[in-house]
Amino acid sequence: MADTIGIAVVGTGDWGANLVRNFAALPGTRLAALCDSDAQRLARTAAQHPGARAVAHVDEIAAATDVQGVVVSASAVNHYPLARTLLEAGKDVYVEKPLALQVGHAEELARIADQKGRILMVGHLLIHHPGVRYLKGMVDRGDLGELYYIYSQRVNLGKVRRDESALWSFAPHDLSVILHLLGMEPIDVVARGSAFLQGRVEDVVFVDLRFPGGKLAHVHVSWLDPHKLRKFTVVGSQKMVVFDDMEASEKVRIYDKGVDRAGQVVSYGDALTVRSGDIVIPRIWLQEPLRIECQHFADCIRERKTPSTDGHDGVRVVRVLAAAQASLDAGGAPVSIASLAAGVP
Amino acid sequence: MADTIGIAVVGTGDWGANLVRNFAALPGTRLAALCDSDAQRLARTAAQHPGARAVAHVDEIAAATDVQGVVVSASAVNHYPLARTLLEAGKDVYVEKPLALQVGHAEELARIADQKGRILMVGHLLIHHPGVRYLKGMVDRGDLGELYYIYSQRVNLGKVRRDESALWSFAPHDLSVILHLLGMEPIDVVARGSAFLQGRVEDVVFVDLRFPGGKLAHVHVSWLDPHKLRKFTVVGSQKMVVFDDMEASEKVRIYDKGVDRAGQVVSYGDALTVRSGDIVIPRIWLQEPLRIECQHFADCIRERKTPSTDGHDGVRVVRVLAAAQASLDAGGAPVSIASLAAGVP
Amino acid sequence: MADTIGIAVVGTGDWGANLVRNFAALPGTRLAALCDSDAQRLARTAAQHPGARAVAHVDEIAAATDVQGVVVSASAVNHYPLARTLLEAGKDVYVEKPLALQVGHAEELARIADQKGRILMVGHLLIHHPGVRYLKGMVDRGDLGELYYIYSQRVNLGKVRRDESALWSFAPHDLSVILHLLGMEPIDVVARGSAFLQGRVEDVVFVDLRFPGGKLAHVHVSWLDPHKLRKFTVVGSQKMVVFDDMEASEKVRIYDKGVDRAGQVVSYGDALTVRSGDIVIPRIWLQEPLRIECQHFADCIRERKTPSTDGHDGVRVVRVLAAAQASLDAGGAPVSIASLAAGVP
Amino acid sequence: MADTIGIAVVGTGDWGANLVRNFAALPGTRLAALCDSDAQRLARTAAQHPGARAVAHVDEIAAATDVQGVVVSASAVNHYPLARTLLEAGKDVYVEKPLALQVGHAEELARIADQKGRILMVGHLLIHHPGVRYLKGMVDRGDLGELYYIYSQRVNLGKVRRDESALWSFAPHDLSVILHLLGMEPIDVVARGSAFLQGRVEDVVFVDLRFPGGKLAHVHVSWLDPHKLRKFTVVGSQKMVVFDDMEASEKVRIYDKGVDRAGQVVSYGDALTVRSGDIVIPRIWLQEPLRIECQHFADCIRERKTPSTDGHDGVRVVRVLAAAQASLDAGGAPVSIASLAAGVP
Repeated sequence: MADTIGIAVVGTGDWGANLVRNFAALPGTRLAALCDSDAQRLARTAAQHPGARAVAHVDEIAAATDVQGVVVSASAVNHYPLARTLLEAGKDVYVEKPLALQVGHAEELARIADQKGRILMVGHLLIHHPGVRYLKGMVDRGDLGELYYIYSQRVNLGKVRRDESALWSFAPHDLSVILHLLGMEPIDVVARGSAFLQGRVEDVVFVDLRFPGGKLAHVHVSWLDPHKLRKFTVVGSQKMVVFDDMEASEKVRIYDKGVDRAGQVVSYGDALTVRSGDIVIPRIWLQEPLRIECQHFADCIRERKTPSTDGHDGVRVVRVLAAAQASLDAGGAPVSIASLAAGVP
Repeated sequence: MADTIGIAVVGTGDWGANLVRNFAALPGTRLAALCDSDAQRLARTAAQHPGARAVAHVDEIAAATDVQGVVVSASAVNHYPLARTLLEAGKDVYVEKPLALQVGHAEELARIADQKGRILMVGHLLIHHPGVRYLKGMVDRGDLGELYYIYSQRVNLGKVRRDESALWSFAPHDLSVILHLLGMEPIDVVARGSAFLQGRVEDVVFVDLRFPGGKLAHVHVSWLDPHKLRKFTVVGSQKMVVFDDMEASEKVRIYDKGVDRAGQVVSYGDALTVRSGDIVIPRIWLQEPLRIECQHFADCIRERKTPSTDGHDGVRVVRVLAAAQASLDAGGAPVSIASLAAGVP
Repeated sequence: MADTIGIAVVGTGDWGANLVRNFAALPGTRLAALCDSDAQRLARTAAQHPGARAVAHVDEIAAATDVQGVVVSASAVNHYPLARTLLEAGKDVYVEKPLALQVGHAEELARIADQKGRILMVGHLLIHHPGVRYLKGMVDRGDLGELYYIYSQRVNLGKVRRDESALWSFAPHDLSVILHLLGMEPIDVVARGSAFLQGRVEDVVFVDLRFPGGKLAHVHVSWLDPHKLRKFTVVGSQKMVVFDDMEASEKVRIYDKGVDRAGQVVSYGDALTVRSGDIVIPRIWLQEPLRIECQHFADCIRERKTPSTDGHDGVRVVRVLAAAQASLDAGGAPVSIASLAAGVP
Repeated sequence: MADTIGIAVVGTGDWGANLVRNFAALPGTRLAALCDSDAQRLARTAAQHPGARAVAHVDEIAAATDVQGVVVSASAVNHYPLARTLLEAGKDVYVEKPLALQVGHAEELARIADQKGRILMVGHLLIHHPGVRYLKGMVDRGDLGELYYIYSQRVNLGKVRRDESALWSFAPHDLSVILHLLGMEPIDVVARGSAFLQGRVEDVVFVDLRFPGGKLAHVHVSWLDPHKLRKFTVVGSQKMVVFDDMEASEKVRIYDKGVDRAGQVVSYGDALTVRSGDIVIPRIWLQEPLRIECQHFADCIRERKTPSTDGHDGVRVVRVLAAAQASLDAGGAPVSIASLAAGVP
């Protein structure tokens, strides 16, 4: 099978199992190896994929000649050492979000990938979502007019994590989409939250991002909420768009709403008129985003092209997360991105 | 008509017209006088209420012997001078929210009312809403367990004001409810927002409040949004409650949801279990809150009792608004309430 | 006041009060007289409208020279005798729905109006609803392709009437819209229902109408239902449209959905492809339908034009109601419209 | 593997594939054989289940000594001959709905199963749905008071079938639930519908069932509709319940709504008072109904117990379908169930 790409998955927990399942079914790839430090879990996953080698240590993956691309879906704290080892061994690597827990680590991974000419893709899943792609198309074509602000909510009553706060667990999704749509990095970040259940791990976090030109973004994440929301609201001068991922089929709503200025008299509120027009719910061809993402990794390996969510995207998201954490730790004081960006690649 | 209470309304604009209409129909009160500096508007309102005297200046109201209670529904910048004049003239006064634009002014009004033994009521309308009353009852009985946090959204695409930001225009509603439910004042406030349309007047503002014991509140206000939301989410350790004022009849939803701790092992995330139970939508007898509020003012005058939204409540809300404005002006730096509370009565 | 039209309202109950309120505020008309056989009710209504004469008997209205248009909002059983008296006295008449309880009576009213050259308008309120007007425009322009079928639901838990079943009380609304949109009368009618609460008065009724060309309509009415629905679904070969009057602002939804036929092979199911496209929620300028209807009556009087819901429309709706009642009484046997239409004008 | 039950699946199309997948994963059963007359489809399914024998003809299944239970998921027209062959060969049989296309055939299958002591289960999937089980529990405990009527909607824009109308394709689900909840058979049936797309196969059908005691049921099925609805409304004298299978988690809503009678004066509408109370959305443990159903078949085989959806249930549903078809063919004339029930077992 000279043409198929050998894939290994490192970390076969809940989410890792989804990745294993997807790559096992992906045309053009071959699930060559599975790796997990938890022997029981490894055995369980391996039993369902007899064609894949089960190994206990990442070094065996790094050394495997039949493995070209490696998916790292381990605990976030291990993303950096695992990805570094694999990149240095010449593998193409797909790391789950967040790329790393420290800005310096994330930057180092991006640098190694660049130097070695390896693919480094980070698992910013929503960038591959057909709904987000649709939104990005609208923004890029200028359909919204000037983009004013974005806010998102990612809340539910769900699994309470012990080693990762709601910020680091949920917000990478929101932040990756916000940076993607705006196409710029924030000036500074304010975050406030509280750790009700375990004392040190925030259950609820609100993050404000200030961008050049007065643009704004706001992210609300929580696993202690009666609602189940996964929703973005994007407000522009001409149109407003909502992407609601909990809707079964009507995921995107385009509001022909805005505020018009009358003639030249732009300095007075009286000259502003609210415009409330049609709403359009476009038909979007929905495909499982994870499937698209796995396919994209395989395509990047085969065609040696830069992933649409590469290491540098990963760095930018980690930078905002780190700034948000610093703000949280400082009781909500604004933290500038520049202060964290010393070693920008 | 010895027993009926003479009422005057100062300021007969959009909202003032609602107040006029309510008092005109309220048993036990008599609409004695209308006052507006806008002669045309005054004439229009007066035409519909031939029994009420129309006057151009508040001094005539202050001097009127047939007026006992005065409703101040003027521009917010005039709340303080009008209310001061009327309280000093011995009138009972109902001031629309916000009570004043400066903490010192609000405090002075509360002090004058106390010294003179006059009723000072502030128009925190939602405190009179049957849905909020229901919520307050649940909180006070401990139905929610420990109250963790509250967030609210008050957004729509609506009238863009020229002289009052979304913070000062919308947030008094949210803040009055939050302080009422929690029964305490915040430690500090962070606010971030942006003025997209007019350059100086914020269209969108996010406010975070930190309370003693790690409790949290969050307010999102905007008049530049595709949704129309007026909603509070209250999360406690035992139950979570949503009050959604845009619902026609199902305004309150009680979620028997929470996170349980297994036995004594409270220090580990693994010991936390999500509990998702029934949802109850209680039947609540809905009456127009404004009607209840007007009745409450009349009752307080007649029975010389303290309003459930008195001057001190007004001061507390203005304090948070002022802190939020200071934080906004400082790019989102936390502003402590203590720093504003020098002259607390 | 030579130009204003003198209006009298006969029957000032719940609904009559709405009509009184509207005509009292309508420019170009003058509320000249109120009539009710219930003296208490009459006194109550008259107290709020001191300018209108209060009379106990319709003959006084018939004889009044300052009354040109009369609104009949009495018990349905009295619609026919009242309207006949008034038409014969030369008045223009607006009768609430249903026009009469017997086909012959309805036909007679339409005939008298024609012969005497009087305006006879029937209160098919929804025909004046901006949402229904929008729908009618779409149908007439052929936007839906071939119109296949319509169904409607008008259910809630509401006032249980003693003298009028859910069929006669609710269905005139649905039937008037269906006949209006389709522009034709049904071939036959089947109705099934049940009288759970009072033994003789149906609380729940389902009505099926069969039209030429295989077109279909279905009406579901009930006052014994947990939902509150007032909704039409219109299915055409090219588009499908929903008019939901319980939605606050998004009342009309246009689905670009249909089933396409592939080329010439129209005889096989395999050649049919489902097409699911965009959804559009058009911005519709919403005005109170009752206000529009009252204005329309005044306009028809002034300009001597035929109302958009005239006596013949009233006859057609009564015909379907009578057929439905006959089918109900016969346990659901189909009843042809032709069998009831002997005396069609 | 003495203890595991050998299962064969006959018919491996879209739905059959789901059954294959479920039985392949069901503990205590073994997927022994697959049968399909479509060789290509058989090969495709067999490739994924190398442990199962692939055969082209049902006779091989009938003769297989390692097959105890057979699932018939073929075209509806073949249900009867296939099931008869298998029952007569001594197999336990699970037939997809509808059990047969003729009442006599369905009755014969039930009779053979009884005589031979074989399990005959019919695939009335919803009877196994946790939401329907919850509803049935409420009805049986009398929580609803007297059960008045039930209506259901099963509509979408979906696959247009060539060989089976919306009535036969969708309504078995609704009818099986209605008969299950009411615990009785209807007196007569009225059905009206229309075949817009193919001329002979009804796309839209409305079915009315009249039961002893004035109870009513109504079913609306369509594959030519802009909505996607799968919903039952059950109205009792004390409570009303809605089961909405399109809701992700809030599938059952219990309305404490009803109409109360004041004292003894039951004969007057005036004595009826609407009662609108709390709404409860109970927490229901949701499991895939098909998984429960497959498990139930295995349990019935092992324990020789009668399925909760046995052949006689299948007969009763076919009887209503046949009556509905007869009514459809007669333009909507009521068709009594007794007229079809000559050979009732």
